[in-house]
Amino acid sequence: MTRSAFTTALHAHADQYWSRHPVHLRLHQGGLTGPELRRWIANRWYYQKLLPQKDAAIVANCPVPEVRRRWTERITYQDGTAEGHGGNAQWLALAEAAGLTRAEVLDERHVLPGVRFATDAYVTFCRTRPWIEAVAACLTELFAPGLMRDRLAALRTHYPWVDPSGHGYFTTRPAAVADDARHALGLVLSYCTTRQLQDAALAALTFKCDVLWSMLDALDHAGRTDSAPPGGCPPQDTP
Amino acid sequence: MTRSAFTTALHAHADQYWSRHPVHLRLHQGGLTGPELRRWIANRWYYQKLLPQKDAAIVANCPVPEVRRRWTERITYQDGTAEGHGGNAQWLALAEAAGLTRAEVLDERHVLPGVRFATDAYVTFCRTRPWIEAVAACLTELFAPGLMRDRLAALRTHYPWVDPSGHGYFTTRPAAVADDARHALGLVLSYCTTRQLQDAALAALTFKCDVLWSMLDALDHAGRTDSAPPGGCPPQDTP
Repeated sequence: MTRSAFTTALHAHADQYWSRHPVHLRLHQGGLTGPELRRWIANRWYYQKLLPQKDAAIVANCPVPEVRRRWTERITYQDGTAEGHGGNAQWLALAEAAGLTRAEVLDERHVLPGVRFATDAYVTFCRTRPWIEAVAACLTELFAPGLMRDRLAALRTHYPWVDPSGHGYFTTRPAAVADDARHALGLVLSYCTTRQLQDAALAALTFKCDVLWSMLDALDHAGRTDSAPPGGCPPQDTP
Repeated sequence: MTRSAFTTALHAHADQYWSRHPVHLRLHQGGLTGPELRRWIANRWYYQKLLPQKDAAIVANCPVPEVRRRWTERITYQDGTAEGHGGNAQWLALAEAAGLTRAEVLDERHVLPGVRFATDAYVTFCRTRPWIEAVAACLTELFAPGLMRDRLAALRTHYPWVDPSGHGYFTTRPAAVADDARHALGLVLSYCTTRQLQDAALAALTFKCDVLWSMLDALDHAGRTDSAPPGGCPPQDTP
C-alpha cells in the first residue's frame, strides 16, 4: 500500500470506533440515569488506570530511544508528576463529582468481568506483540478528540448535577490526545513499510476497536439484564 | 479453614456456575433457534480449542512430576492421539451435525470479541499464576457432569434435527470430567494448606466462574442487540 492508501485504511476504522456504540450515543443524548452514568465512570476507571502500564509495556518493548522518550510522556500524562495530578486523578475527580466515593472506584467493586477481560486483553496485547503493533492499536486516538469534546458538551447540557470540578479530564485531554495520535500515526507510517507490517497494524487497530466496543457491550448487557451469578463479581448498582 | 470447610467453600461456587446462565437455561429448555444453537457451538469452540494449551500451561508451570503426568492426560483427551480423535474433534462433529461447516468454525468468523477476551483471560491466568491456582480455576469441573448430561437430554428432546453423530462429546465427557474434577480437587486440598493459599484458590474459582459467565453474556448480548460496529469483528449469523 502507498503511504496515502495505508493512512486512508487506518482512518477508515473510525466506523468501528466506540463513539457509535449505543451506550455512548445514549450518554451523549442525555439518556443515562445517574446510576448508569456512575457505572460507566466506575467501569471506565479500570481501563483508565491501566493506561500507564499499557504505555510502559510499549516503552519496555521499544528499542528506539527517541520513541521511548516521547512515549514516556504518556505515562506521565496519566500518572501525573505527583499525587493528585495527571489524567487519572482527573478521572477520579469526575467520579467524585458524579457522586461516587473514591473508595468504591478504587476497590473496583463496580467493574464488570467483561470490562476487565477486554481491558486486560489490550494490556496483554501491548505486552506481548511487537511494539509498533501496540502503537497501531493506540490509533483509536485519531478518533477521540471529537468524542471528548462532545462528551464535555453533553455533561454540561444533560448532566448538570455533575459538579464542574469533574470536567477537567475532558477540557485538557482533547488537545493532548490529538498530539499523541499525530505522533503514533507518524510512527506507524514510518515503521510499517511492508504490506505484512501494514496488515498487522490494521489488524491491531481492529482488535483495539473490538476491545473498546466489547467494554461497552458488557456495560449495556448489565443494564439490560439481571443475569449476574449470585455469588461472583456481578454488576452492582452504584449508590 | 479445615479441609472440610475449605471443600464446602469450593463447592459453594456451584451458585456462580454458568449452568444458571439464561443462555444455558434457554438451551436446555429448547428455546434456542437453529442459528442461536449454531452460534453457541461456534463460540464455545474458541474455548474448547484453547483447553489443551491451557492445560499445557499448567504442566509447564508445575514442578511435580506425578501431577504433570496425570495432567498431561487432559491435553491428550481434547487433542486425541491422532487427527479426528479426541474431545475437540467431537466438538467439531457436533458443529457439523448442527449444520455448520468445519471451515467456518475453524476460521472463527462467528467468535464474538467478548468470548475471545474472556477465554484468553483464562489462558493468561493459567500461564501466569502459580500452577495450583490454575488447578483451582479448573474446579468448575466439579459442577459440569450434571450439566453435560442435561445437555445431551436436551439435544435429544428439543433439537432432534442435530444429527446424533454430533452427540459424542456429551456421551463420553461426563465420566471423564468427573475423574478430572476429583483429581484437581485432591490437588487443591493437598497443596493449599494455608489460609492464604485457600483464599487464592477460592478467588481463582470465582475468576473462572466469571470467565464462563462472561462468555455467555457476550452471546446473550449479541442475540439481543444489533450493536456491533459496522467494520470490526461483529456477531454474524450462522447460515
